[in-house]
Amino acid sequence: MNESAIPFGVIGAGRIGKIHAANLANRIRDARIVVLSDSAKDECERLAGQLNIAKTTPDYRAVLRDPEVQAIAICSSTNSHFDIIMAAADAGKHIFCEKPIDLSIENIKTIDKKIRATGVTFMVGFNRRFDANFAKIRDLVRSGAVGDPHVVKITSRDPAPPSEKYIRSSGGLFLDMTIHDFDMARYLIDSEIVEVYAQGRVLVDPVFAKAGDIDTATVMLNYENGALAVIDNSRRAVYGYDQRVEVFGSKGMATVTNKTPDNHIYSNTDGIHSALPLNFFMERYVDSFLTEMQIFVDCVKKKVEPPVTTWDGLASVAIALAANRSIEEHRPVQVAEFVERR
Amino acid sequence: MNESAIPFGVIGAGRIGKIHAANLANRIRDARIVVLSDSAKDECERLAGQLNIAKTTPDYRAVLRDPEVQAIAICSSTNSHFDIIMAAADAGKHIFCEKPIDLSIENIKTIDKKIRATGVTFMVGFNRRFDANFAKIRDLVRSGAVGDPHVVKITSRDPAPPSEKYIRSSGGLFLDMTIHDFDMARYLIDSEIVEVYAQGRVLVDPVFAKAGDIDTATVMLNYENGALAVIDNSRRAVYGYDQRVEVFGSKGMATVTNKTPDNHIYSNTDGIHSALPLNFFMERYVDSFLTEMQIFVDCVKKKVEPPVTTWDGLASVAIALAANRSIEEHRPVQVAEFVERR
Amino acid sequence: MNESAIPFGVIGAGRIGKIHAANLANRIRDARIVVLSDSAKDECERLAGQLNIAKTTPDYRAVLRDPEVQAIAICSSTNSHFDIIMAAADAGKHIFCEKPIDLSIENIKTIDKKIRATGVTFMVGFNRRFDANFAKIRDLVRSGAVGDPHVVKITSRDPAPPSEKYIRSSGGLFLDMTIHDFDMARYLIDSEIVEVYAQGRVLVDPVFAKAGDIDTATVMLNYENGALAVIDNSRRAVYGYDQRVEVFGSKGMATVTNKTPDNHIYSNTDGIHSALPLNFFMERYVDSFLTEMQIFVDCVKKKVEPPVTTWDGLASVAIALAANRSIEEHRPVQVAEFVERR
Amino acid sequence: MNESAIPFGVIGAGRIGKIHAANLANRIRDARIVVLSDSAKDECERLAGQLNIAKTTPDYRAVLRDPEVQAIAICSSTNSHFDIIMAAADAGKHIFCEKPIDLSIENIKTIDKKIRATGVTFMVGFNRRFDANFAKIRDLVRSGAVGDPHVVKITSRDPAPPSEKYIRSSGGLFLDMTIHDFDMARYLIDSEIVEVYAQGRVLVDPVFAKAGDIDTATVMLNYENGALAVIDNSRRAVYGYDQRVEVFGSKGMATVTNKTPDNHIYSNTDGIHSALPLNFFMERYVDSFLTEMQIFVDCVKKKVEPPVTTWDGLASVAIALAANRSIEEHRPVQVAEFVERR
Repeated sequence: MNESAIPFGVIGAGRIGKIHAANLANRIRDARIVVLSDSAKDECERLAGQLNIAKTTPDYRAVLRDPEVQAIAICSSTNSHFDIIMAAADAGKHIFCEKPIDLSIENIKTIDKKIRATGVTFMVGFNRRFDANFAKIRDLVRSGAVGDPHVVKITSRDPAPPSEKYIRSSGGLFLDMTIHDFDMARYLIDSEIVEVYAQGRVLVDPVFAKAGDIDTATVMLNYENGALAVIDNSRRAVYGYDQRVEVFGSKGMATVTNKTPDNHIYSNTDGIHSALPLNFFMERYVDSFLTEMQIFVDCVKKKVEPPVTTWDGLASVAIALAANRSIEEHRPVQVAEFVERR
Repeated sequence: MNESAIPFGVIGAGRIGKIHAANLANRIRDARIVVLSDSAKDECERLAGQLNIAKTTPDYRAVLRDPEVQAIAICSSTNSHFDIIMAAADAGKHIFCEKPIDLSIENIKTIDKKIRATGVTFMVGFNRRFDANFAKIRDLVRSGAVGDPHVVKITSRDPAPPSEKYIRSSGGLFLDMTIHDFDMARYLIDSEIVEVYAQGRVLVDPVFAKAGDIDTATVMLNYENGALAVIDNSRRAVYGYDQRVEVFGSKGMATVTNKTPDNHIYSNTDGIHSALPLNFFMERYVDSFLTEMQIFVDCVKKKVEPPVTTWDGLASVAIALAANRSIEEHRPVQVAEFVERR
Repeated sequence: MNESAIPFGVIGAGRIGKIHAANLANRIRDARIVVLSDSAKDECERLAGQLNIAKTTPDYRAVLRDPEVQAIAICSSTNSHFDIIMAAADAGKHIFCEKPIDLSIENIKTIDKKIRATGVTFMVGFNRRFDANFAKIRDLVRSGAVGDPHVVKITSRDPAPPSEKYIRSSGGLFLDMTIHDFDMARYLIDSEIVEVYAQGRVLVDPVFAKAGDIDTATVMLNYENGALAVIDNSRRAVYGYDQRVEVFGSKGMATVTNKTPDNHIYSNTDGIHSALPLNFFMERYVDSFLTEMQIFVDCVKKKVEPPVTTWDGLASVAIALAANRSIEEHRPVQVAEFVERR
Repeated sequence: MNESAIPFGVIGAGRIGKIHAANLANRIRDARIVVLSDSAKDECERLAGQLNIAKTTPDYRAVLRDPEVQAIAICSSTNSHFDIIMAAADAGKHIFCEKPIDLSIENIKTIDKKIRATGVTFMVGFNRRFDANFAKIRDLVRSGAVGDPHVVKITSRDPAPPSEKYIRSSGGLFLDMTIHDFDMARYLIDSEIVEVYAQGRVLVDPVFAKAGDIDTATVMLNYENGALAVIDNSRRAVYGYDQRVEVFGSKGMATVTNKTPDNHIYSNTDGIHSALPLNFFMERYVDSFLTEMQIFVDCVKKKVEPPVTTWDGLASVAIALAANRSIEEHRPVQVAEFVERR
């Protein structure tokens, strides 16, 4: 056993919990899992068995009490994040938390104070920042190759809608799905978003209307530095998970196309055919999930601040709330209506 | 000489006039030029010499009085369109008019009445409708391959800004440049635009600010049928003329990439390199200019209504005016504030 | 009428004759057609009518006797080339001749002497040299961007086999079809071909076997400078006309992909789909036919040697004959077995 | 510890040994390493330390004597393969052996008999068969989508030459590098290679000539079923590892492009730029190395014959030897001159 490995507790054994647990158990340098927690006891024990995790518990508080645990990965539902983070920080555990931190600006501010007071390491799981494609675009922007950024375009479309149950507890399209794009808009360009204008539609499935949600949206963002961004979202792209960004500036343009399972091209009498995008985030972002957790572990070991902070978590939620208000009030909305700039 | 060729007068020997004159003189079936008119006498005579056009005149009225002339191509500045069209219709000449018809909704309505009253054939020069790439996208939409359209994305960026003189008389970005994209948005989807929200910036050259204009814009459009569109424009893409559209719908997505002078790929130690887009509209849309004029000539011969009507000219100007107001008043603007639906 | 235009006689009103006649009549600067000749009288008159050509004749000798004619375009069958060229040169007519000049090395040598003796301008119709894609590859090679060339790869596949009648009089795959690729191999690299090894198959249609011909081939060429080339041919690529080249060298690689009618990309549940190549040479090489004839006309006017000489015509036939012998004798064959280097 | 994991001995801790050891230690289901062997003691112990491998030995015989070891991975130099395989089979160890098995047809036949006599599981490391790109092409061929295969094209170019020491012991280009392509030619099409014609050159580095080797080659292969293949190789492609295949047939064509580290496209005034191929086999084939070893482990566990047999190892060596003779004797060479068909 690697004695220098940081002992983790993983809280949540659902879709995203499985990804992080498998990475921490087998692929992350200098980390190991000592306990897995989920109120769904069977699922928790099944996953623990697969990954050779010694302890399981239905109660996250047991994880926080465990003296062996030095860091936790919070993969439970958003509404549980606040309580877990506050207690974990008090218990001196380092915290990796899935996005969004919380749906309330006030709660995130409280969390931010707690993190600062306790000095634990905290990172939000905006995994797409660690995707090689998007990182390359940011590098091109940072290097000056794009020049002054003028227009950012982000297309983010899921292959299929989630379940009605998921939709009802998701916080809505902007807080659940577009929040990744809001963070991407902030990540690609070194300037804050100051204004949001959004249009939303139910074009994919009436179930979204029943839940008071939307399934299709276009959003326009204004950066503080004068640049503009447009985002378009859909809950169903029949051809698969569509994840593209483009940054246009005074010296050039940087774009990324989708990742595919292979690079074949097949030509027949009907046309030229190639592979669909990797189907969904588990396939598309497999490397970015690994990289983000490795970076968190490295930050814990080196005692440095992680690259995604509570402010990043706060800013993206504020933009999402502004987008919601833009639709409700049918007007451009200032992000400052929700949060003052740090 | 082809006796069945329709005798044209061409009014305007500038950039776009040269394109149409060369096509009518050499490449259009069943058309010929009998007179060329431009107040710039030298330029007019030089072009007439190159194209073997027998007559020239500095005064467009001489063209309209010429009994040999059956049809005219109006390639003069926008502010001259109204007078020429009104007089030409009275003279019984068929009219091809460059976009925009006029910057005033009232004038276009007056023109529309005149066209109907005189029965002359009238067509607006939205040449991009006749580009093979965009026509293919429209075909895919029409055929049902895209399903119900949800989101339309149009990127339109010029390679370099026009002269300050041109800018000052252009009517502004939306009426001069984006108007093509507004027409494209209407062409691709069989539904009218009902609302516009626009953001404009001066990021390319301060000369635009001096002229009260913008050089960079993002525009969000709402279709009557619930679909959404986003347009982004720039007056300078250093890599060349960037002309792309994308239609995303319930059954798929149709996009077009830029046209390039060749399909070479060069690989060296620095990367994989390929050709820049064709530089500007003269190269990019050479085929569409030819096709649109051929269609106009065919419509004149067959006495059928051309595929781009005064209503198309009117609707695109109304959307452009709504975009201007959206920026002035910083709010979403209804197209109905400018024109009632026909 | 353009008085400075060179008066042409066009001999042959078939598939390739129609292309050259239409170009000379309408699109070539400084050229016009005064007479069209084809033994198929009806077809000849129909084409002359379409293109407003004043005179027609079933006998090419009438063209050569016509004092108005200064230059001829030979578009008749290969077995007629020798007699026409010899008589035309004696009549002092400049000569554009479709490839191949002749199937006999001796005849081409006789032609070469005649051309030199009479001083008429002579050019062979290797149109692909004037295609923008291939010219770009050659430019990259010439500029040194590719470095020393090591390997040339040429893929040339027709969309469908010609008629049995055509096959029987074609001279066989290498002299009819691959001859373009042999010329391309010589055009791309400044070094002569010294050895040929070929494999041929009948995989597309047994009609080729009946005619003593092949429909599928791979050919390996050795350049004098040590570089290597591989060519692959098929008489039927169901996805359309496949025309690609690749030059690999010490500093990089230059390739071209096929040209398509448009650049659309359509994505649905089945995959990502794009346009097939332009169907056949009339569409694919429309620009190169125009450019080559313009260059011939310019050479006649400027009294300079055209860029494709009798030696080029001779060398490609010698390579084709070596390829035929390679298959017959199942061994690598020296080009010097057929022609000494000039 | 996974008690059902097959205990491996890994023989050879060089470049390829490191890949297989890391996979067996961390990423392969149902396998673990109990001993690592390499005569280079320091390197062996360093790797064992990194991978937490308990035992090391400079002598492969110690591995074969180890009663805990059930299977071995042979990653040592080719000239050691024969002795190790013979002894390992006698010791009842299952054997994964890197390509080529041996450079002597007789030795491989002896190995084949030994494998059959002892009944151990044996697999050759033709890892490219397990690459998702090439597997997709084979699937398209197998499914009938390509129709009857007519022409196979394989391009295989290394980013940079190996060391002179490596070259001198490599067996030459065909046995060291092209052997992968010979196997690929056999893998893609269900027909054996019957004849080989090869051309070789020293164009990259004179060191190859000093070693009696070549660095550039084109090879033509005839399949028993009448299909043709062309292979081109270079020891140095300055733009990176170039690994492409194309299968052309009666119903269509299947090709694969290179894999790249990301899908970015950067456009500036110089052109459109994208990422170079993944640099070399460690990056390009990382997944295929993992998949092939997993399949070997699964075959050992399930007691089924692996998908790459001694016959596959034998056939590819015979083709390579035929290619060598083709160059020496400057003629097409039958594979049957080296081995009778099984």
